[in-house]
Amino acid sequence: MQRIAIDMDDVLADTTGRFIEYAYTRLGKKIKPVDLHGKNWAEVTEYEHVRNWLFEDNFFRNIKVMADSQDVMKKLCEKYEVFIVSAATEFPNSLKEKIDWLDEFFPFISWKYIVFCGHKYMIQADYLIDDHERNLVSFTGKPILFSAPHNIHLQAFTRVNNWQEIASMFL
Amino acid sequence: MQRIAIDMDDVLADTTGRFIEYAYTRLGKKIKPVDLHGKNWAEVTEYEHVRNWLFEDNFFRNIKVMADSQDVMKKLCEKYEVFIVSAATEFPNSLKEKIDWLDEFFPFISWKYIVFCGHKYMIQADYLIDDHERNLVSFTGKPILFSAPHNIHLQAFTRVNNWQEIASMFL
Repeated sequence: MQRIAIDMDDVLADTTGRFIEYAYTRLGKKIKPVDLHGKNWAEVTEYEHVRNWLFEDNFFRNIKVMADSQDVMKKLCEKYEVFIVSAATEFPNSLKEKIDWLDEFFPFISWKYIVFCGHKYMIQADYLIDDHERNLVSFTGKPILFSAPHNIHLQAFTRVNNWQEIASMFL
Repeated sequence: MQRIAIDMDDVLADTTGRFIEYAYTRLGKKIKPVDLHGKNWAEVTEYEHVRNWLFEDNFFRNIKVMADSQDVMKKLCEKYEVFIVSAATEFPNSLKEKIDWLDEFFPFISWKYIVFCGHKYMIQADYLIDDHERNLVSFTGKPILFSAPHNIHLQAFTRVNNWQEIASMFL
């Protein structure tokens, strides 16, 4: 059985949507996804705010789930060994929230297949679906880029734009 | 640089000592390490109690650090790429406590090198130092058994009895 490692933020969870919401409700700043093209969040608002939000309670808990990800994940889990691999240890408050979030939206994923880490390069898998270049370049299996505003300019990876495209590729 | 993955419970942290303390203060049961030879905690006290403690706040936060582990770890980190790899996602409350514990006793270890997981078999490293047979048998590098009462009967692995023996092996 082939193993797929799947990122959480901006792949399963609409974390950029959460950031846009916080920028508006906390700073009164209207940010559109297009404003984020090729940029990190810290480049379109004050870095210290973003940092603080990520360490706050509840930032990660109520993020919206990505369209079609639940259905496609359920099918992937029948055909592949699926691991959730989230670079989360930088944000200690996020860890329990991420477990609770997965329990709510992906109850069929056991804790046995959840990994929280810093670096992802020591994860052994056949595929990694991730939105961050830094995780994909050092991955030893086949890297797959999940589109997000910040990575829209990247050319070097096989790209999927949404969960339907993941279904077409793997199912 | 070679990579060493190091377990937390019963390797860096005296988690069995914590269990013995809880068995005494909560259940009035005096358990000696020798009573645990070849056994899991659940075999010497009621399983439901042990389970509950592991899900409780503060079980993991104030565990004693293993003798010599801080000094030896500091030196290991200069010579190897050291990852902490703890099977912790089963216990969501433990995650932040484990980060805080590492911050206190091993402040030189960055969040980038901390991994919380269920299964460890997809971790790519040259060595894994762990007290559990289930993690060592499926490891793709060289497994090293760290002695704990429950594993005292195992013969199949290179064994270290304490952190001084880890120093002798690696430094």
